[in-house]
Amino acid sequence: MEDTIAAIATAYGEGGIGIVRVSGPKTFEILEQVFVPAGDGISNRKMTYGYIEDREKEQKIDEVLCVFMKAPHTYTREDVAEINCHGSMVALRKTLELVLRKGARLAEPGEFTKRAFLNGRLDLSQAEAVIDMIKAKTDKTFDVALEQLDGQLSQKVINIRQLLLDLLVNLTVNIDYPDEDIEELTYEDLEIQISQISDMVEKLLATADTGKIIREGLKVAIIGKPNVGKSSLMNELLRETRAIVTEIPGTTRDTIEEIISIRNIPIRLTDTAGIRETEDKIEKIGIEKSKKSFNEADLIIFVMDSSRDISDEDREIIQYIGGRRAIVLINKIDLGRTWKREDIEELLPNSSVLETSLLEKTGIEEIEEVILDMVYGGKVKQNESLMVTNVRHKDLLERAKSSLEDARNMTLGREALDFIEIDIKNAYESLGEIIGETVSDDIINEVFSRFCLGK
Amino acid sequence: MEDTIAAIATAYGEGGIGIVRVSGPKTFEILEQVFVPAGDGISNRKMTYGYIEDREKEQKIDEVLCVFMKAPHTYTREDVAEINCHGSMVALRKTLELVLRKGARLAEPGEFTKRAFLNGRLDLSQAEAVIDMIKAKTDKTFDVALEQLDGQLSQKVINIRQLLLDLLVNLTVNIDYPDEDIEELTYEDLEIQISQISDMVEKLLATADTGKIIREGLKVAIIGKPNVGKSSLMNELLRETRAIVTEIPGTTRDTIEEIISIRNIPIRLTDTAGIRETEDKIEKIGIEKSKKSFNEADLIIFVMDSSRDISDEDREIIQYIGGRRAIVLINKIDLGRTWKREDIEELLPNSSVLETSLLEKTGIEEIEEVILDMVYGGKVKQNESLMVTNVRHKDLLERAKSSLEDARNMTLGREALDFIEIDIKNAYESLGEIIGETVSDDIINEVFSRFCLGK
Repeated sequence: MEDTIAAIATAYGEGGIGIVRVSGPKTFEILEQVFVPAGDGISNRKMTYGYIEDREKEQKIDEVLCVFMKAPHTYTREDVAEINCHGSMVALRKTLELVLRKGARLAEPGEFTKRAFLNGRLDLSQAEAVIDMIKAKTDKTFDVALEQLDGQLSQKVINIRQLLLDLLVNLTVNIDYPDEDIEELTYEDLEIQISQISDMVEKLLATADTGKIIREGLKVAIIGKPNVGKSSLMNELLRETRAIVTEIPGTTRDTIEEIISIRNIPIRLTDTAGIRETEDKIEKIGIEKSKKSFNEADLIIFVMDSSRDISDEDREIIQYIGGRRAIVLINKIDLGRTWKREDIEELLPNSSVLETSLLEKTGIEEIEEVILDMVYGGKVKQNESLMVTNVRHKDLLERAKSSLEDARNMTLGREALDFIEIDIKNAYESLGEIIGETVSDDIINEVFSRFCLGK
Repeated sequence: MEDTIAAIATAYGEGGIGIVRVSGPKTFEILEQVFVPAGDGISNRKMTYGYIEDREKEQKIDEVLCVFMKAPHTYTREDVAEINCHGSMVALRKTLELVLRKGARLAEPGEFTKRAFLNGRLDLSQAEAVIDMIKAKTDKTFDVALEQLDGQLSQKVINIRQLLLDLLVNLTVNIDYPDEDIEELTYEDLEIQISQISDMVEKLLATADTGKIIREGLKVAIIGKPNVGKSSLMNELLRETRAIVTEIPGTTRDTIEEIISIRNIPIRLTDTAGIRETEDKIEKIGIEKSKKSFNEADLIIFVMDSSRDISDEDREIIQYIGGRRAIVLINKIDLGRTWKREDIEELLPNSSVLETSLLEKTGIEEIEEVILDMVYGGKVKQNESLMVTNVRHKDLLERAKSSLEDARNMTLGREALDFIEIDIKNAYESLGEIIGETVSDDIINEVFSRFCLGK
């Protein structure tokens, strides 16, 4: 980390203020070359007014506020500068270009936070929390990530690892000095301790399914034949008109994903173009996309028209849904019913069937309730605070759990302590990967590649 | 301006950093209630690390860097605070909500800059330059606005006004004290002076047409029947594929505006869906939009297929273009020609006819040349620096010019000095409106309503 990095740190687009961030040993040197303070010079942490100027071309680039922050009390623990330009893409691009020309290198996505991690300011799960905070779509998603940044998950993991380490020390002593006068670790004690630790891991894991949804959102695909009310449902849930609503079948040409928030849970809604076969090339693209979102969905909402007979196309969709988790909306009940809800309940046993009239706006709250039930899945309380939201963490917890199960089984089978020790060590290391204690460069690179530029 | 205002000052979206800006007398008081510094307390201009916290709910909202800047050396000349949150819409919204709950009011668009104007830090044309900088799409647009912010236009206007003021003083003395022993202002002198000032105004005005395009972009509508290469042209000019290109006629369902930069001039390209009549409701919406962009365009590019006969639809478009400024692209010359370019040149006398093969990428530079010729219109040099870019300024300069013309005519007609004085005063005031010296609240409000939130 000998080099100095720079990037635009604010969101892309027009705004009042935009920031170019610089970090690394040459930060001050670069700042002196590009920044012309209007009054006094640059001093540590002082917000200074002045101009960014390209001296070679004798050209003012922007009027700015600029702050230099000396290592180590900075985001990256390196020297950092933040140049507050006008929130203009031109000003930001030109300022960044000048900073790069003066010796900085364009930062990779997440590289500022990666440096914070490598310099020991954050552990890996805290670094991961940063990007989750930025991408959060609801308060709940944000708060869970903020707690993770705060170190609450890390602390839990560190606690479990400490117990494992104590156990490992005890095991080693018993293995290496079996004849010494030390407290003997009986298989019974060992089994109890492994079980207790395993329970702690399992308790964390129990939050993972809900946690994943809180972080990434529940993927919901809306399906149904043309003109049954799919776009209206989407709009009703969005409470604003983004998809075009018309009375012409086949209007929705593309899958559109919209993120809504139901009681602070992000829901990624996709309105599909249908799945029937077609010769129309454009429509074909749409149908391929529909099938993809359909297959990736956590939940399917199948919209039917209660006023029209169940058609071949409905049956095709029913067959396509099969045994998957679905909500069936029998819509347009205001227009009457030509068939019974039981007909559908028989055909789709894993579905919740609701009757609605989107036109009259009835039944919408029930949809939201059913979605929420599915999110929390009975296992997790809605006010539970600490949650495992990250798939990487979940996988590692599962690996630790499985190692602990192996260790427990071997303990019950009275096998040699050496073998049991290996599994407990594996569990210890899996948990270490969560906080980045025992983690490979590949994983670190993968974690930070998910970041946005400038963070 | 007794109240304290607050807004999110960075662009909307995900980023590394996002800023909540606060300005007004209660800024410090509010900051003390919401910000918990990690180390030392808040001091003037010092970037301080800490937390935003909702104390009533005992809830951490975000980890931030925060700076307080004491009046009067600030953007608004009031006390200002900038809270650098994580670039998360949730963090920014929650921080803003808390600041508002503690006594700030949500700022109107442009209200920070409006305060800078009302407190005398910027004149009106400089304030207008701020929003032009933010919205700038090309370097040229940005640089012209930066010069305006720097006061170069203001200085020119102030100089002309000074000449007018000197003349007014001289006139008043001659009117009020005709018998005193003062230098007499002859009609000949008066005429010369008015003409000189009028020339200065005219010189500024000569830059206005090009200036408007530099600021707002040249609106170019691409038209032509299906499958002649409209989307390919758009893509070629964009040099990336954004519009779907397929071989199916009628693919482009919507008008899509894209902004490109031809030698730093912003060009707003619209690909139209055609203008032919249709029964398809969706298509009808597209065609209405097409007609609108067609009518609003500064320049039309009409794409034809040289390998197919001129059809009724082509003739319909030709009729629709009529005498308007247009570029006709005879495309697909690689496939041969079934008619001559003279056929079109006769039908559309105000057009430049070019032959291209977008498939073989020939003729594209010529299109760019013709567009640039139209932008600069022969009157303005490409490296001219000071430009009138704003329609409001142009209108005021025209009003001043017309007042000066009236004054000159009356001078030539040897009319009473009192009447001439009125016109010169009108010119003086029109110019004053540019910099906001003599301007009504309505105009001020209108100017700032164009701003984005947080600026």
